Amino acid sequence: MGKVKVMSYTISLDGFGAGPEQSLEKPMGLGAEDLHHWLRQTKCFAQMIGQEGGSVGVDNDFAEKGFENLGAWILGRNMFGPVRGDWPDREWKGWWGPNPPYHVPVFVLTHYPREPLVMEGGTTFYFVTEGIDVALAEARAAAQGKDIRIGGGAATIRQFLLGGHIDELHLAMSPLFLGKGEALFAGIDLPALGYGGVERVEGEHATHILIKKV
Amino acid sequence: MGKVKVMSYTISLDGFGAGPEQSLEKPMGLGAEDLHHWLRQTKCFAQMIGQEGGSVGVDNDFAEKGFENLGAWILGRNMFGPVRGDWPDREWKGWWGPNPPYHVPVFVLTHYPREPLVMEGGTTFYFVTEGIDVALAEARAAAQGKDIRIGGGAATIRQFLLGGHIDELHLAMSPLFLGKGEALFAGIDLPALGYGGVERVEGEHATHILIKKV
Repeated sequence: MGKVKVMSYTISLDGFGAGPEQSLEKPMGLGAEDLHHWLRQTKCFAQMIGQEGGSVGVDNDFAEKGFENLGAWILGRNMFGPVRGDWPDREWKGWWGPNPPYHVPVFVLTHYPREPLVMEGGTTFYFVTEGIDVALAEARAAAQGKDIRIGGGAATIRQFLLGGHIDELHLAMSPLFLGKGEALFAGIDLPALGYGGVERVEGEHATHILIKKV
Repeated sequence: MGKVKVMSYTISLDGFGAGPEQSLEKPMGLGAEDLHHWLRQTKCFAQMIGQEGGSVGVDNDFAEKGFENLGAWILGRNMFGPVRGDWPDREWKGWWGPNPPYHVPVFVLTHYPREPLVMEGGTTFYFVTEGIDVALAEARAAAQGKDIRIGGGAATIRQFLLGGHIDELHLAMSPLFLGKGEALFAGIDLPALGYGGVERVEGEHATHILIKKV
């Protein structure tokens, strides 16, 4: 059976995975434009968006590792888009254009049903209204033994942590403070939840933290 | 006029400066024995406690820098000892033995008056019951133009941050999670308080973060 992993999830030094007031114009919220600087300058990210260049090194190695052996993704609804409440139409198809960087089934947690959305390149978005356990069961079935990556955001990761579902986490800590926003560790006691074995790897533009169930 | 600085203040990756249930036996609280590992293995720390050896390198450089040009310290009461409430007697003289590592006046914030305590080596503990502004004024007078170091704990640093008094912070992030305890950033929005200019320096056993007023 594949692992359930959080990979390349980026937080500020004060523990926020996004700033406040996320919107179409500011998908990461206010003040968080540089949160993913470490990722955006990698070769891995450049390839994801069909561009040349980008850095190689520790940060890039971690970015690439985040895509290895994945059979499915699970995303919180806000990771899929800025639309809140019921789907007003079928126009919004994710942040990523016609060929999203997933290339596997992606299960989006939402309270509002929607038909699956088949994209180019192997990505299909499935909308799951029955909560994280159903999403995980469907992702496992789709992943066929490969790993499942929980993409975020913070509230989704917290739910999976509290449910005891996550085998490994790779967090990237960017060297900035947000002050407010989506607090990854709110109500989360990682040692009490059985996580430890912390490894720290300094990247060019972020500190990488590896955690697993011990 | 000297600067007001937080130096070598150590937090876990989830932002705790100490674990829960601090006591005489566990001054740093439960689960936090390794929080200061980066510091304890330095030459600077060995010298502080009158021993030989210890590492030299980035961590040691930061530890030493924390003692440069200091004219006074300010400590929260729990940093001085595990005694809570009124002083039952005059027996408790700090965690550090007859010759504490300060060698300058140290102002201890407390609600309970106590006569100054003159120790060996130039350290005198003064007990301030009138709050942080009075403590800072007295520390400034004592420091004679040198810098003032706010030693902690988290609640004390938060008070000085919210009061706008701190010019520079050096935080050491140890690669571990505590899950609960004294949360340094609780209610603290560093960007909103005017702090930024974050520098990240990789140490042997901690990630060092430098922040200042911008």
